[in-house]
Amino acid sequence: MSLIVTGTIGIDTVYTPSGEHREGVLGGSCAYFAAAASFYGPVRLVAAVGDDFPEAHRKTLARFERIDAAGLEVRQGSKTFRWGGKYLDNMDHRESLFTELNILAEAPPAVPDGFRDSTYVFLANMHPALQADLLGQMSSPKLVVADTMDLWIGTARDDLAALLKKVDGLVLNYDEAEQYTGRKNPVAAGRHILDEGPTFVVVKKGEHGAILVHRQGVAALPAYPAEDVVDPTGAGDTFAGGMMGHLAASDPSDPADFDTLRRAMAHGTIIASFTIETFSLDRLAGLTPDRIGERYDAFASMVSLA
Amino acid sequence: MSLIVTGTIGIDTVYTPSGEHREGVLGGSCAYFAAAASFYGPVRLVAAVGDDFPEAHRKTLARFERIDAAGLEVRQGSKTFRWGGKYLDNMDHRESLFTELNILAEAPPAVPDGFRDSTYVFLANMHPALQADLLGQMSSPKLVVADTMDLWIGTARDDLAALLKKVDGLVLNYDEAEQYTGRKNPVAAGRHILDEGPTFVVVKKGEHGAILVHRQGVAALPAYPAEDVVDPTGAGDTFAGGMMGHLAASDPSDPADFDTLRRAMAHGTIIASFTIETFSLDRLAGLTPDRIGERYDAFASMVSLA
Repeated sequence: MSLIVTGTIGIDTVYTPSGEHREGVLGGSCAYFAAAASFYGPVRLVAAVGDDFPEAHRKTLARFERIDAAGLEVRQGSKTFRWGGKYLDNMDHRESLFTELNILAEAPPAVPDGFRDSTYVFLANMHPALQADLLGQMSSPKLVVADTMDLWIGTARDDLAALLKKVDGLVLNYDEAEQYTGRKNPVAAGRHILDEGPTFVVVKKGEHGAILVHRQGVAALPAYPAEDVVDPTGAGDTFAGGMMGHLAASDPSDPADFDTLRRAMAHGTIIASFTIETFSLDRLAGLTPDRIGERYDAFASMVSLA
Repeated sequence: MSLIVTGTIGIDTVYTPSGEHREGVLGGSCAYFAAAASFYGPVRLVAAVGDDFPEAHRKTLARFERIDAAGLEVRQGSKTFRWGGKYLDNMDHRESLFTELNILAEAPPAVPDGFRDSTYVFLANMHPALQADLLGQMSSPKLVVADTMDLWIGTARDDLAALLKKVDGLVLNYDEAEQYTGRKNPVAAGRHILDEGPTFVVVKKGEHGAILVHRQGVAALPAYPAEDVVDPTGAGDTFAGGMMGHLAASDPSDPADFDTLRRAMAHGTIIASFTIETFSLDRLAGLTPDRIGERYDAFASMVSLA
């Protein structure tokens, strides 16, 4: 029941429609995922940053006590990944203002020896060949889930297809599911992806929730209906973090079971709903398990038809 | 526990992305609503058609045995409302090819004397002044819900605002909620509308489900995850028909109660999921209560987090 996440840690600049913005805040898929997962249990983090990585961001990560950052490589002479984006209109669309790959264009970090026995593996968004390489360093995975993005679907399709044969599940956005499969319906797109290897696909729809397409069936969950959305950055990564964190903590005999995953997705839904209430990891940093539990119960009641 | 629906019956021509299309099929908000509601109990229909209304369409309506069509006026010398539309891409957007108002530009039908004691009233999409007029003919409403559309928000805003003071609930699409309120978030938009009178607002999101914004709280439900969507026409009207049909049939002491409405919305969700499986009322005409019950149970399991 050891959970590991590999991916990116970055320095983000985010503009929102309200006029509010933040420059140089902590971001990256790994940071968001790990912070979310840490509410459920320990989480091992593998990522690389440059020597420009601010001490303040390290301290923010350290506030999440169950993150094991032994896999955070600080590479001298390199620069941290930086991303700037601007959210449009209703927060469901954004444009990238700049993307400085920096260290992401170099060799990936190694998985520390002490992390290789991790059983729950989340390969956050990176080049799929690197995801496969990182996965290859694990000795005893029980559940492997990968995220991806439009960039790799467009530029590394073969590597992504090869990765799909090695994972239990894939998590991706609605538009990306269509992009990869050419199918405009998320259920049809999900089934298409299942044909390439995975046992399940989670199609993320942002404010509209998520759909689980699984060999055992299909399920849909709404997002928690949030009234005040400040910054959606990290919603998808914390969704995955809550889902995988819950799975690793409960460690069921079959973590890829349909009903088990469906319930785990609800935990991801709730963590993500907190993430978007303000910038970066600020909301999660002040969050308590009680508050998460309250909202989870409210959500469960909201969708209960029993 | 008598349910009435006022609105339009039309003759539709529909083009879909698959290349399939249908010309001159039965359509209109009243037809869709009444067909859906009739699975739950009797439903009274008030609408006007011209003397060109095809006998075949009358027979299709008659297949729904619990529709009381005593309020269907066939006006000699008038022509039936006709609409043609084309669905784009992922079915969530459509463009109107033609709209021939015909009889909708004339005086509305009268509510038959025998229908004036209806307790559950659904004012399907029409000019809000006509909706108010029809409502004024009812002697003892217990629950009044109205639908509206972008056209009236743009051209009859004051009439719509006046109507909002007289209804318990409003049903409208996501984009329309934003259009009316200027709020891009559906929960915020819903609350804005509550300030103008209603006890609740249902924001319909098509394939993404619906959000209930109520004085007692907020709830979200996904749509039933359909893989084969042929023609989305009537999804919103049958959603409302299932919701109101269920409410009228169960006739709770407070039909505008939050939890009662939330559960009723699930019935609407299921009926709508059948509607879109083929054109016009074809799927509903062949539907059985058992089949509805099976899908409802599957949906309830799909979202259960207990």
